Amino acid sequence: MDLAQIVKVARGDAPADLALRNGKLINVYTGEIYETDVIIAGDKVVALGPGYQAKNEIELGGRYVAPGFIDAHVHIESSMVTPPQFARAVVPQGTTSVISDPHEIANVCGLDGIHYMLDVSDGLPLTVYVNASSCVPATQMGTAGAELDAAQLATLLGHPRVLGLAEMMNYPGLILGDPSVLAKMEAFRGRIVDGHSPGVTGQWLNAYVAAGVGSDHECVTAEEATERLRLGMYVFMREATGARNLIDLLPAVTPENSRRCCLCTDDRHPADLLDSGHMDQLVRMAIAQGLDPVTAIRMATLNTAEWFRLYDRGAVAPGKRADVVVFADLHDIRPELVFSGGRLVAQEGTPVGDWPVPQVDDSHVRDSVHVDWSAVDERIFHIPATGPKARVIGIIKDQLVTEHLIEEVPRDAAGQYAVTDPERDILKMAVIERHRGTGNVGLGFIHGMGLQAGALAASVAHDHHNLVVVGVDDKSMLTAARAVGEIGGGFAVANGDRILDRLPLPMAGLMSDQPVEAVRDAQDKIIISSAALGSELHDPFMMMGFMALEVIPALKLTDQGLVDVEQFKPVELFVER
Amino acid sequence: MDLAQIVKVARGDAPADLALRNGKLINVYTGEIYETDVIIAGDKVVALGPGYQAKNEIELGGRYVAPGFIDAHVHIESSMVTPPQFARAVVPQGTTSVISDPHEIANVCGLDGIHYMLDVSDGLPLTVYVNASSCVPATQMGTAGAELDAAQLATLLGHPRVLGLAEMMNYPGLILGDPSVLAKMEAFRGRIVDGHSPGVTGQWLNAYVAAGVGSDHECVTAEEATERLRLGMYVFMREATGARNLIDLLPAVTPENSRRCCLCTDDRHPADLLDSGHMDQLVRMAIAQGLDPVTAIRMATLNTAEWFRLYDRGAVAPGKRADVVVFADLHDIRPELVFSGGRLVAQEGTPVGDWPVPQVDDSHVRDSVHVDWSAVDERIFHIPATGPKARVIGIIKDQLVTEHLIEEVPRDAAGQYAVTDPERDILKMAVIERHRGTGNVGLGFIHGMGLQAGALAASVAHDHHNLVVVGVDDKSMLTAARAVGEIGGGFAVANGDRILDRLPLPMAGLMSDQPVEAVRDAQDKIIISSAALGSELHDPFMMMGFMALEVIPALKLTDQGLVDVEQFKPVELFVER
Repeated sequence: MDLAQIVKVARGDAPADLALRNGKLINVYTGEIYETDVIIAGDKVVALGPGYQAKNEIELGGRYVAPGFIDAHVHIESSMVTPPQFARAVVPQGTTSVISDPHEIANVCGLDGIHYMLDVSDGLPLTVYVNASSCVPATQMGTAGAELDAAQLATLLGHPRVLGLAEMMNYPGLILGDPSVLAKMEAFRGRIVDGHSPGVTGQWLNAYVAAGVGSDHECVTAEEATERLRLGMYVFMREATGARNLIDLLPAVTPENSRRCCLCTDDRHPADLLDSGHMDQLVRMAIAQGLDPVTAIRMATLNTAEWFRLYDRGAVAPGKRADVVVFADLHDIRPELVFSGGRLVAQEGTPVGDWPVPQVDDSHVRDSVHVDWSAVDERIFHIPATGPKARVIGIIKDQLVTEHLIEEVPRDAAGQYAVTDPERDILKMAVIERHRGTGNVGLGFIHGMGLQAGALAASVAHDHHNLVVVGVDDKSMLTAARAVGEIGGGFAVANGDRILDRLPLPMAGLMSDQPVEAVRDAQDKIIISSAALGSELHDPFMMMGFMALEVIPALKLTDQGLVDVEQFKPVELFVER
Repeated sequence: MDLAQIVKVARGDAPADLALRNGKLINVYTGEIYETDVIIAGDKVVALGPGYQAKNEIELGGRYVAPGFIDAHVHIESSMVTPPQFARAVVPQGTTSVISDPHEIANVCGLDGIHYMLDVSDGLPLTVYVNASSCVPATQMGTAGAELDAAQLATLLGHPRVLGLAEMMNYPGLILGDPSVLAKMEAFRGRIVDGHSPGVTGQWLNAYVAAGVGSDHECVTAEEATERLRLGMYVFMREATGARNLIDLLPAVTPENSRRCCLCTDDRHPADLLDSGHMDQLVRMAIAQGLDPVTAIRMATLNTAEWFRLYDRGAVAPGKRADVVVFADLHDIRPELVFSGGRLVAQEGTPVGDWPVPQVDDSHVRDSVHVDWSAVDERIFHIPATGPKARVIGIIKDQLVTEHLIEEVPRDAAGQYAVTDPERDILKMAVIERHRGTGNVGLGFIHGMGLQAGALAASVAHDHHNLVVVGVDDKSMLTAARAVGEIGGGFAVANGDRILDRLPLPMAGLMSDQPVEAVRDAQDKIIISSAALGSELHDPFMMMGFMALEVIPALKLTDQGLVDVEQFKPVELFVER
């Protein structure tokens, strides 16, 4: 809508497209809540107040009107569905904008993956902003599908939905002045740079902030949050499917600093999205914990818009995009109506109206499992026994950090190979490089998966997303790994030569091409299939997916072998102790 | 300083350039005040906290440390000195950044004038940002030295210190959809657009905001401020030499909305700057009125930086520009030390160190009074008496609005010309076009100047800045007008053929090329000279300068004649009533 028409409607000389009558406006600018009409023309709110004519009207009868929620930091890939399906899950819950970091698909498909995420989210009722993934690959100790240097990342800057640089996870590199990291900061100078600095404090934190990183979503204590706020960082308080930090962090929020606090989900699985909710759940939690409701809503709207310089949203006010959420109970926010760009797009938790289905060429993100299966048999899982004791990755329930165990492992009858010991829950783990056909297979042992028989395999394995396989025997492991290959990526459960279950994730081996509800059902089912083999973990695939992540302590396995994360270097499997 | 060196110093591996030890930091992010060291490298703060080595140290002994103040809106020309001299006046009082609107010089010299202001302020300890003057000329009912359309204004956008569009004074034009005004908004779409909407309310205000105007500094009541804050505008609370609004507006500030409140001076004369102060005075006033000190300081720092998207300043924190103010008493802030970009630039109210003296070609802003004096004699002031009664501009003390009087005026002996009546304080006023040599002379009568003899003339006459002359007799008026011409613009006082006093303002007829203290003394003196002729006004030149401003009601005079501002149209001098 052109400016001439906007002022004409706003001054009352032409009818609006839509009037939301008699809602109680949550005014995030003034902290007030009061009854007013919200007047919409085209995709914008053009006026607040009485006396406007409109072609369409909705009587709100005193229900609350708030800005659409904004997720400050999310990896959409973790929902295991594509952005259009992710939108169908979160928009009915009141989220109308997200700032996404396509870090997972970037590790598989590089810039092609990032462009896919941008293209496939074009025109959705959810505005999907993208921050350029800063750390692809996470380290050189594992093999990813792409390496993105400063120059490649900078090519994204022209896109209107690319805001800046996503979480700078390589904080040691930045703080210690690694030239390739500094080059990325220079390439994004003057743009938004999000942070990721778990546990960083004192002088190192000063250096991280002085370098230009302006936010952090990795706080786990209120003290960490306060230290960051004092230095001028925005703190995104996270409530993910795995990492649940919000309740611990809320005590850091004060009336004086709350303007620089935001909410984010980071990673949420389909069941969590559908059952618990999205940003609405975080807002509900914060209010339930005693935070002032307008403050909580600001942390999901205005504050986030301010940090990301999204001047067209974050509030219900003249000139802002008409992303509006309507609900009945301020202390138990359940969006009843959701408007995106002035259109009613969801009602009572369900999408309504015509949602665009972006037609994009997705061929370059399909077929992403590049393993020469003809050259592979059970022998790739054989571990020559070269010492008396082996390092074993020790799973700690509900955590991504592991123990670094040293255990005796049994040998086969010939005494040549080290084998599993299911009674002691010592299983084999393999990481098969799947991007470049290197033939790399990293091998090790893992404790805590609980399988009594069979094997699990997955192509979701942070951050490199190689094929990760855990099993009791080599045959099952091969069957599971091959099954994942056959479906173009995903999850598989096998026992011997039988495939028991699988969940295809053909988009980069990370996301389904099916509706979110179907993926959720399939995921529930495959977790049950895993449990039938003995796993007692809440989600063995999620756990397995982090056992290959060589930036989280203590012991992890990549396609290149075991990594002692505390020493930040590769280590041998067997030890002479 | 390059990023590698910044992180090196910040992480503690290289000495800083400067450490401010043991100050009490005003943390505008968290609202806290606590003791800490402020560590500076190059022009930036790189760290807060203990344990840093530095080449230079200053012990603050518990004095307060705050960010340098930012004036949200100022016309530097009103100080009657050039930006380097303005900086010498305001930096020692703690102001380190201003957002200026070079509206006055733009009306005289067009883009050349704006470029002069940019060039001559380059490298000063005061960062002078410029918003492009949106309304040159103010109207078509007076003749300015330039007309700046959307395309010309857009040429300024590439300059790193040009932020956006300055106060959109033509609010009727914008609200009613004048295409030339909409074109300016389009040209600055996505950039900052400041407002000016005195008295605008309701639907018109919605339209003004919906069009993209995001701030206002013309509020005079708390109710007006609240209405604007609710619609998402930033409110700049003004305390100028003329318009003093701060105390009336402070009741609108709440803990919930204060983040969107800023402070500005708009227009301050030399004496006011030197005696009362600059932003420091506004902060002191706000605190004295009971506002929380950190909130008051935020209104002069962080909030203003946020609205203007000045991400590198507004707080004392790692990565921010080291613009820092040190003072002893939080409830009576008197800056003792002022740092700009890490350099100590003022101490105890006095500039210290080497200040750059920008060398620029200023020839195109000098010699701005273009009147063909050879073609001019007393007869230009003759007013043929064509009716029984005349419209008379009625001055209201301490206000810019006037009365629209209808009075009988005497005639000369021959009954041909209308003349002054000093006993009734009805004097002649003339506005001589001085930019283009049109020969335009607007003539009328004015009540309230109080002269018993002689005449005053000035080249500062908002917004067109033609030559304005008020006098008892034509000879004195001609002498005063010529005197202003001879000094290349400025103020003059004359009686008969004697020049009694003059104040040269050779820079565009608006600013002196002398130090601010000298200008202040000259101004004091010329006001006394005016008083000797009978004027009882606090500042007759300031008053006279607004009597030609055809956008402030009720009756004004331009070079094209009388304007009935309430009808927004030219009117005849004589009426048949």
